[in-house]
Formats: sequence, structure tokens, C-alpha cells
Amino acid sequence: MSQKNILFIMYDQLRFDYLSCAGHMTLTTPNFDRVAQRGVRFTNAYVQSPVCGASRMSTYTGRYVASHGAGWNKFPIRVGEVTLGDHLRQNGMSCWLLGKTHMQADEEGMARLGIPKDSIIGVRQSECGFDPWVRDDGLHGNGWDGDYGENDGPYNRYLKEKGYDTANPWATYANGSVENGRLASGWFIENADKPANIREEDSETPWLTREAIRFIDQATGPWCAHVSFIKPHWPYIVPAPYHDMYGPDDIQPLIRHEAERENANPVYESFFTNKIAETFRDDEARNKAIIAYMGLIKQCDDQLGALLDHLEATGRDRDTVIVLTSDHGDYLGDHWLGEKDLFHEVSVKVPLIIADPDPACDATRGTASDALVEQIDLAPTFVEMAGGTPPMHILEGRSLVPLLAGERPANWRQYVISEYDYAVTPMAGRLGMASRDARLFMVYDGRYKMMHSAGGHRPMLFDLESDPDEYHDRGDDPAFRPALDRLYGYLHEWGLRMSQRVTMSEADIDRKKGEPQREGVLVGVNREDDLGEDFTRHYTGPARQIHFEREEDRRVLGGLSSTDESE
Amino acid sequence: MSQKNILFIMYDQLRFDYLSCAGHMTLTTPNFDRVAQRGVRFTNAYVQSPVCGASRMSTYTGRYVASHGAGWNKFPIRVGEVTLGDHLRQNGMSCWLLGKTHMQADEEGMARLGIPKDSIIGVRQSECGFDPWVRDDGLHGNGWDGDYGENDGPYNRYLKEKGYDTANPWATYANGSVENGRLASGWFIENADKPANIREEDSETPWLTREAIRFIDQATGPWCAHVSFIKPHWPYIVPAPYHDMYGPDDIQPLIRHEAERENANPVYESFFTNKIAETFRDDEARNKAIIAYMGLIKQCDDQLGALLDHLEATGRDRDTVIVLTSDHGDYLGDHWLGEKDLFHEVSVKVPLIIADPDPACDATRGTASDALVEQIDLAPTFVEMAGGTPPMHILEGRSLVPLLAGERPANWRQYVISEYDYAVTPMAGRLGMASRDARLFMVYDGRYKMMHSAGGHRPMLFDLESDPDEYHDRGDDPAFRPALDRLYGYLHEWGLRMSQRVTMSEADIDRKKGEPQREGVLVGVNREDDLGEDFTRHYTGPARQIHFEREEDRRVLGGLSSTDESE
Repeated sequence: MSQKNILFIMYDQLRFDYLSCAGHMTLTTPNFDRVAQRGVRFTNAYVQSPVCGASRMSTYTGRYVASHGAGWNKFPIRVGEVTLGDHLRQNGMSCWLLGKTHMQADEEGMARLGIPKDSIIGVRQSECGFDPWVRDDGLHGNGWDGDYGENDGPYNRYLKEKGYDTANPWATYANGSVENGRLASGWFIENADKPANIREEDSETPWLTREAIRFIDQATGPWCAHVSFIKPHWPYIVPAPYHDMYGPDDIQPLIRHEAERENANPVYESFFTNKIAETFRDDEARNKAIIAYMGLIKQCDDQLGALLDHLEATGRDRDTVIVLTSDHGDYLGDHWLGEKDLFHEVSVKVPLIIADPDPACDATRGTASDALVEQIDLAPTFVEMAGGTPPMHILEGRSLVPLLAGERPANWRQYVISEYDYAVTPMAGRLGMASRDARLFMVYDGRYKMMHSAGGHRPMLFDLESDPDEYHDRGDDPAFRPALDRLYGYLHEWGLRMSQRVTMSEADIDRKKGEPQREGVLVGVNREDDLGEDFTRHYTGPARQIHFEREEDRRVLGGLSSTDESE
Repeated sequence: MSQKNILFIMYDQLRFDYLSCAGHMTLTTPNFDRVAQRGVRFTNAYVQSPVCGASRMSTYTGRYVASHGAGWNKFPIRVGEVTLGDHLRQNGMSCWLLGKTHMQADEEGMARLGIPKDSIIGVRQSECGFDPWVRDDGLHGNGWDGDYGENDGPYNRYLKEKGYDTANPWATYANGSVENGRLASGWFIENADKPANIREEDSETPWLTREAIRFIDQATGPWCAHVSFIKPHWPYIVPAPYHDMYGPDDIQPLIRHEAERENANPVYESFFTNKIAETFRDDEARNKAIIAYMGLIKQCDDQLGALLDHLEATGRDRDTVIVLTSDHGDYLGDHWLGEKDLFHEVSVKVPLIIADPDPACDATRGTASDALVEQIDLAPTFVEMAGGTPPMHILEGRSLVPLLAGERPANWRQYVISEYDYAVTPMAGRLGMASRDARLFMVYDGRYKMMHSAGGHRPMLFDLESDPDEYHDRGDDPAFRPALDRLYGYLHEWGLRMSQRVTMSEADIDRKKGEPQREGVLVGVNREDDLGEDFTRHYTGPARQIHFEREEDRRVLGGLSSTDESE
């Protein structure tokens, strides 16, 4: 079909397996499932880093973390890095942001290049290439500092207009509850079972959903809207009626085994011995967190339903591609860990559902694809959906358009890569890592998953065929050496990939072939007649000679005056 | 000493072994030797790519080719890439260009960021960070096209003012001779034995030397001047009296062996079967080229003498560091090759002499250092000489200042890297290489030198201890497998280096540690009392409650009005 819009919806910290279409045992998500019914659900989709900022910067640039360098939350993405927005606008599609990006502007670089922050170029540089409809990253701190530490993000402004009368209602209402007349902050997991002190319709997910509807109703296509929800990301607290919608019996079994802590890899150990992991080993805390997490997801699903209904009511469902994904998962106590950071499936694999109304995709509706997919594949996919040709000298992912049409390219990728830069975390300190060595690399080939530590610690290796739960680290098992060597071969090949020749397209390369000679530059040509008359004539002809005053010069070339010409 | 200037002199295509201080048998270069007597001569200095453009972009950014991406001549360096000039100006030192850079501006990137080409920022972006005093890259084509194809570079303008009356006197006078009243172009090696049709003092090297003197006499320090000569780069032609100063008997023996062509590595073979290599297997052509090449170097040495004399006469020698180097070598028929491109010593190793008047360097005057040095070491060296601290999150080289003071850091590098992107050359086509695979990597550890081909061809390996002339490729000799494996280990480690985290210095990394908690973000904290009262008080306090209209909300949090406060 000729013209499409792209509704690019991202949830934050949504695990791949917390959807009913992905097999969750008790949580029903009819609206996620509804989109899956209309499109393709990718069951092997991986993020390029299991931490918000780095993962998103890769998704928004279509490049690996090592290629753009923004390896952790709020590491600025270098000025001039080309983004999804740049590519889409080049192809006549606008690209808007609603919600969270975790983007930090390279203000030093912008100043060096004289780019005003308030210019259109400056704003796009500051918002990772998006035109901001409304940006709010959530996570507005405690806000209960003395006279209520002021916070005036768009969402707090909305709450204040609605009468939530503190300096930071995000913290004191949307992410807090009340107990005995005192604030019970959602920042503390012990309060996760309490209802947020806010009307449900004023909480973050419904607010952003209404913003999305407001955007869609006024947008003139073709447009790409990145609707980026902060939830189900912590603080783990949700308003009624979602706060007690689930109970301990609805919680899936822990993915955890004592074998994981025996002779544990030192890097893994530094993570499961941190404060967060300890908290998630407290069953009561863990249960409260998961029950709230499930409530938050259920609220996301209900709001997704409202959004889908609106698209259908307005006919936008017929020309709008819907993309549902996340920036990483959440350990929730599995593998003795909390949060994300490492590369177990529950952390590095994400939900990815794409429903394209294009008739070319009719054959794949309601199907699942187990192709190895990376989040950087979205940028080239969107460029192709916008009618463009993905600039593969800049983008490192692959377009998913063929997969959506039911094709499975013969040369599809053999492995996925994910990275984690933990230089600023306490684990780097405990492992005595230099900041440039505190980097981890994951290679997964569809069966074996390897974690390489730049700092020199031994690798981790899992065989997901015989050990789907990733309990048994085979990193130092000789029997698995061939698999480990193969994955290292992939990693080393990837390390030497061409990632920075971003100013030269394939067409530019072709144009440059033979350019020196076209410019009259001859290299290693001996005789005038070696190249033929029609070429040589450009290099010879009647000579002009200057007048040489000095004897030694005359000796050499004679003494014609500069006006004479000898034939 | 407090304040220095840096006279950063680069010759183009000057072989490391064509100086008398480096042991040339017949060519005497008393002025190069004079600088060597005052400083340190580095005998293991390698360029990051054996081709002008890529080598220079690495030298001017202090970063490997794979890091900046400008892999061949006139591949634009991406807008915003931080340069030597940026670093020096930050430390109060100006940075000027006189002569050649081979820089190509990223005009597309500049337009995308709204940088006007004629602004100071735009000019520096276009000149790889230098402030241009005079830029001329030489190589102005044939100029004999119909009505003398116009060329108005600074050097041609100079010649025209001097009465050299053609549209492109660079081609018709400075790089041409006269035979039977017709132009004998220097572009053809058969004319290399003829004197250029120009007064010696008007040829390129004396002209740029006078520009350098003119610059120095008006400059107020501290300054860095990149005086970048196009010679002894081809066209191989030189004015009298240098054209017949040497004869066939002055030519050093060929470094060439039949064994090199037996079972030759396919990549190497594709280079020694090209047109240029064939020309340099013609003894007459080769002799003419080398005799002219030696004359050009001799002229460079005489002009260097004039420059040194001027520095001494004006006292500038006492506060000016002198750096002499080149951007790559020249095969001149050795190893069955012409030109540069590959990684034999005569191509990838360059002269590097640094004379620093600082008393701290007195102990090393007149000495040689065999430390493994890369051309990207110059940028951090110059930053330190300017009184700054090299930003090692951007610069990939190492300061040579300790070596100049006679120290040999214990952790000095174990290997050097060089790269070559031959995507636009005919060899890529003949080898059937995809443009992104047409890349070569050299690893040299001081004894073994390996060439890896990204395209999958077998590696080349030389043992320079038992085979200093690099005649015997051990790439597929099992006896050398351990050495090959070790070099591959270095290459793979290098491939995974952190090269793009350029917006975060070590200080920035340290500042970020614990930042989320400072911003009130708590991760995985269970109970309010887990962190102590003075911390928790920011998260709790008297609650405000809003009025809930709906029954189900009231059921949950009661119905206080938004004005009430409960204690």
C-alpha cells in the first residue's frame, strides 16, 4: 500500500513472557493478543543492551552500542549521530515523540558546533532525532524534600492542573500511597501492595494514552509516533483497581536454581550479591513487586485496548502499522537477580509484535516468527515502510519487512549481539574494573548464549536447547569448547565490522571508483602512449617555456622568453 | 619549560629509509640528521593506514581508521569528529595548516546540522580542525585539456603571479618538462629524468618553505603549525639541479625475492599484478622514478636547512618543538610493488623525528627509540606539550612525552595496528570483494607482522627477526601458528576496544557513579528504614489526599477532600 503511518509503542521493562499471547499462566492481555492476531509476534527479539538508555539509543539510531557509544543511562549520544527521525524525514515521514526516551543531549558537542539548543536542529539533536510532542521520562525523584522538591515535567503539570497539590505530584500521588495519614512512597517495595494515591484515569499510562489519541487525531500523515510508556517500570505501585487484581497464586514459578550460585562466574556473582538482588530474594517483597508489576501490565493492556478502539473508530487502523515492544525485561528475582543488566532471557529478550495492515502481510497475520531479531532492525524496517531504502552504511540492523511478508531470507543473521557497559555501577568497583574494561558482550546463535567480559573474567555459556532455563554455566566445560569457540568467532568478526564509514554510501563508493584518473591523476603510468592518444592528449601539447636568467637553468632548458611558443 | 610552539612538518610518501640518519647508502640528508641530533628518532613508527587520506585523518584525530571511518582518500570525516586542532585550542594553542591534508568535508553532515561552510566553525569542520594559513593538496591534474583546464589553488595563483602563463602551471611547469618544444608531462614516469620546466625557487617545496617562514615570523605563540609538503610524492619530477644529482649507481638494491610470488596470498597477488606494480618492474622506469625521488628528497632536505637556519636566526629554535614525519612510504618496486597500500615496512613504516628544546629532553638528544609508535600518538603528545591532559576517552594514541624524556613506561603497547580500506580500488573488483569486506588489518608486535583480510582470504605472516626483508609469508605454516594466534588475539582485543564513548570522560564516569540515588531514584529498596532516617525523610511525611468521587476509589483510600490534611 502507498502510504502508512507507524504507531511505535514501547513499554519500559516489560518482560517478553508477561503477555497471555506469550504464554503467561495467569495474566491475560487481550489487547496485546489482539495486535498479535493481526500481525507477527517475534519470539527471538533481543535488545542491544539490557539497560534503558543504551537500549533506546541503539533502537533510535539503528546502531550497536559500541557504534554510537552511549553505553548507559544518560550517556550523551554524540552530536551528529544520525537517527531514525533523520532517516524517516528524508523519506517524507514525520517522527514524533510521546513519552520517554532517556536521551541526554551532547551539549558540549552542540556548543562546539554552534548549534542553538532552541533551534529545530538543536531540539532534534537534544531529543535523539524526534520532534517532541510531549516528553516525560518519569522517575521524578522523591519530591518530598522540605518544601516538596519542585518538578515541572509535562506529567506533573497535568497533575497540578488537576488539583494534585504538591510540588511533585508524580512522587506524592501517582507513585505514592497513604498509610495512617502519611505518604507511603512507591520507591519502597514494601508499599507495592498499596493503591496509588491517584484517580486511575490520572495515572501515567492513561494520561499518555490520551496524549497519543490527541496526537493521532490532529496528525497529517505519513507519520511515525513513538508512544513510549514509562510503565510497567518501577516504582512498583499502581492505582486501584489494579493494585489488588492479582495475588500470590497468580505468580509464575521462580526461574532459579542453586546450581547457578555454585562456582559462579565472578561478574554474575557481583550482580547477584548486590542490594537489589537481595531484596528480590525476600519472598514478601518479591511477591508485592510482581503483583504490582502484573497490575501495571494489565493497566497497559486496558489502555492499549482504548487506543486500538480509537484507531478502528477513526479508520486509522487501515493505514497504521502497530509496533509493540519494550526496551528490556525485568529479572523479578529470577536467576537470583532483580532489575535487568545481564543477559538471561528474562532481561535481554523483549516482546515484539508488528501488525502491518498492508495486504502484502495478510499471509502472516496471527503467526509467530522465531528468526533472530535485534531491536536495531526496527529503524531499517520503518525506513522501508516509509517507502525509502535503508542506508546500510549507517544502519546496522536489517529490515523485517520480508519477514512480515512471510519470506525468510536465506542469509538471515546467525547471531545476535547485546552489550552492557557497567562502568558507573558499584559492581565495576567491586570487580576492580577500569572504566573502559567494565563492558560485557552477549552472543546468542539461537541455541548457545555466551557472555564475554572485556575485563578478562571467564565467559559464561548456556545451552538453551538442553538447559532452556539457563541454570548451568558451561563457560569452563571442555565439552562445550567448540560451541564457545564458534561464538567467539562471531564476536571477533562483529568486533571488526565496518561501523563508522557513515559518510560514504555504497553509491558513493561506486562513484569514487576511478575518480583519481577522471581528475587527471595518473599513478604509475610509464609512457605517454600507454593509455592511447585520446587520453594522452590531455597531458601533452605545445610547450610554453619561461625565461631562465641563471646560467645553470639555461643550460638545462634553454632560454626562450615566456611569450615565445615553439611548435 | 612553560610555553612551546610545535612545528609539525609532514612530507608525503617519504620512505623511512631514505634519510642518511636512517642508513641510506648514498643519499645524504644533513638537515634531517641535524634535527635527529637534537632529538629522538623513532625507528618503529607506523601509520594507521598506508594511504594519504586515511593516514592523515588518523593523525589529525588521534584515532584509528575504524574509529573515525574515513578509510580512503577523500572519504569525508564525519561532522563533529573531534580533531587535534580542537584539543590544542582548548589548551590555548592555535593550530594552523600550511600545505596538504587531503581532507574532504562532510558537507551533507554540515548541512544536516546547519553549519555554514564560511563560518569559523564551518571552515574548521572543512579543514579537519586546522585554521588554514594556506591549503594546497597538489595533484592538480593534467591542466592541458583544450584551453588549459583552469586550476586556481594557492600554489597555481603564486605561479601565475610569477608569470607562468597557463591555466594550470602546476601541471605545465612545476610538474612538466619540455622536449622538442612539447610538454613532457611528469605524470609519465618516462619523463622523470627530465628537469621540471620551472625555476627551482618557484617549485612546490621552496614555495611552501617560504610560506612557513612567513607564518612563523608573524605568529604569536603558543602555536602549532602543520607544514605539510606534497613532495617527494609523485609526479616524479624535480627541477634542476636536483634532476640529475643522482644516477643508477646511487640506487639501493631492490628488496625483492622470487619466493614472494610463489603460492602468493591472493590479496597480495591482486596488488603485484596491477598496472603500477608492472611499471615498477620495468628497470628503466624504476630507475628514473627513484633518481627523481631522491632529488625531491634532497630538495626537501635543503629547504629544511633554510627553515632551521631561520628558526636559529630568530631564536625560535629555543621554544619550538620540531616534528618530522610522513604519511606513508613508497614501494618503488620493492616486493614487486609500486606505490603504497600494503603493510611491508617500506610502505607502512615512516620516519619520525621529534626535537624538543625542553631541558627535560636533554638526556635523549641524538638517540633512537625502538618503541612501538603509532602516528595517532602525535595528537596526545602535542596536547601534553601544549600543557593539557590528553582526553583519553577520545584519543586512542599514547603521549610520547615520557619517551622523549628517556622513560620507557612499563605498560607500553605490545602491538601496532594499521588498516587499509581498498573498496574503491580495482583490486577489490578483481577479488570480488563486497565494499564492506574490502578491508585489511595489520598487527605488528615488534617481531611478527600479520595481515588479516576481512574478506576471508588467508592471513599473511612475516617473522622480521629471521626474515627482516619480509620475503617469506608464514601465513599457512603450522610452525608459526602460535605466533599467528597471538597476533589474532591482539587484533580481536583491539576490535572490541571502546572507541566511541567520546562524550564521557573518566571524570564524567566518576561523577555519574551513584547519580540515580542522588536524584532520588531508589532501585530495589524494600523498607523505609533500610536506608536510615536522614535518607528516608525525603520519601515520607504527612500525606495529602485528593477527593475521590467514585465509590471504588473511596473504598480504597477514603474520601478526604484535597484541602484536608491528616496528621
